Amino acid sequence: VKHAIIVAGGSGKRMQSATPKQFLNLNGMPILMHTIKVFWQYDSAINIVLVLPAAHITTWNSLVDKHQFSIKHKVVAGGLERFHSVLNGLNTITEGIVGIHDGVRPLVSLNTLKTCYETAKTAGSAIPTTAVVESLRQKTETGSVSVNRAEFLNVQTPQCFDVQQLKPCFNIGFQNSFTDDASVWEYAGNTVTLVDGNVENIKITTPSDLVFAEVIKLE
Amino acid sequence: VKHAIIVAGGSGKRMQSATPKQFLNLNGMPILMHTIKVFWQYDSAINIVLVLPAAHITTWNSLVDKHQFSIKHKVVAGGLERFHSVLNGLNTITEGIVGIHDGVRPLVSLNTLKTCYETAKTAGSAIPTTAVVESLRQKTETGSVSVNRAEFLNVQTPQCFDVQQLKPCFNIGFQNSFTDDASVWEYAGNTVTLVDGNVENIKITTPSDLVFAEVIKLE
Repeated sequence: VKHAIIVAGGSGKRMQSATPKQFLNLNGMPILMHTIKVFWQYDSAINIVLVLPAAHITTWNSLVDKHQFSIKHKVVAGGLERFHSVLNGLNTITEGIVGIHDGVRPLVSLNTLKTCYETAKTAGSAIPTTAVVESLRQKTETGSVSVNRAEFLNVQTPQCFDVQQLKPCFNIGFQNSFTDDASVWEYAGNTVTLVDGNVENIKITTPSDLVFAEVIKLE
Repeated sequence: VKHAIIVAGGSGKRMQSATPKQFLNLNGMPILMHTIKVFWQYDSAINIVLVLPAAHITTWNSLVDKHQFSIKHKVVAGGLERFHSVLNGLNTITEGIVGIHDGVRPLVSLNTLKTCYETAKTAGSAIPTTAVVESLRQKTETGSVSVNRAEFLNVQTPQCFDVQQLKPCFNIGFQNSFTDDASVWEYAGNTVTLVDGNVENIKITTPSDLVFAEVIKLE
């Protein structure tokens, strides 16, 4: 059984827009619908769980009506931190492989989805990564230092896990060190398997990201 | 006196193209010409030094003819590493502020250029940075670990320096730890001043980056 927990909690501050960024239109349809659609294109039988801030559920329902969006999905209310939102989604499923995905990553490729879900099925987990192209600096107490970008990887989503192995990891409770779902998994003593993601699979956070996504989706 | 050393050494492997990426067309004109043009738009009196691999100089000259590219610039042959290419450019100048810039970053904003050059004039150096949006992992001997992206910054160009302070830093000779020009500056005992860059100022390394740049340049 395959599941997708799509987490859409962002407020859109960086987008300079009053509309939560996951609801912004990308070629005429909200970003979040594009994201859901890719998972459905990958596997039309996948169980899609959409986690939204409680305050946005009414808006979402009216967008679904307006766009006559027909891909089946369950809506669950989110929590205080991403950790709690994912947990609310996890509480609706019991077994199989789950991919936890950012709602504002509509450019994930079918190939990335395939690699992640198939790897997680045999390895227990799979998270997509890409090479760091920009030079990096690390902040220090007194300023910052150059670091070697070749030692780092960008981490994307979906982060895929065996559901029965992942659920106990979330029983530990929220820690400030949890930056993504893989860090919850690792904190519980598991190791993550890295796979290659697709470079276009950016998190849409700025107006120029949206422009980029529009062009890629039209191609 | 303001100088720009524009370094264009990439081979275009990631672009899946036989043409060096800096020569690829962006809305009908090679990327590198767009990059030169932004510096000229910022200050039409700026001294532009273009560092090209020796093998590409003939091609560049014919592109200049073909596009009737009239912005004045000096062409210098590059060296083995970026370090040596920058040094060859530095050897043509003696004082003032120099901005060292990647040839494949045509999306640097006029505002970023202004901030960098003006800050370097008073502080001795200025390098543009942006927040890291993607989650990061650091490679380890046995695998990789999550790191907190809030502790890191993306580093862009132009990296700007006082010429008379920078030149002695390059006398030290090449070190493997030199990942950018700021690291040469710091290795000699100087501190760098960080300023805000513009997020669009990406290094064009993939076909989708080129698509992004085409849309941003048309706006």
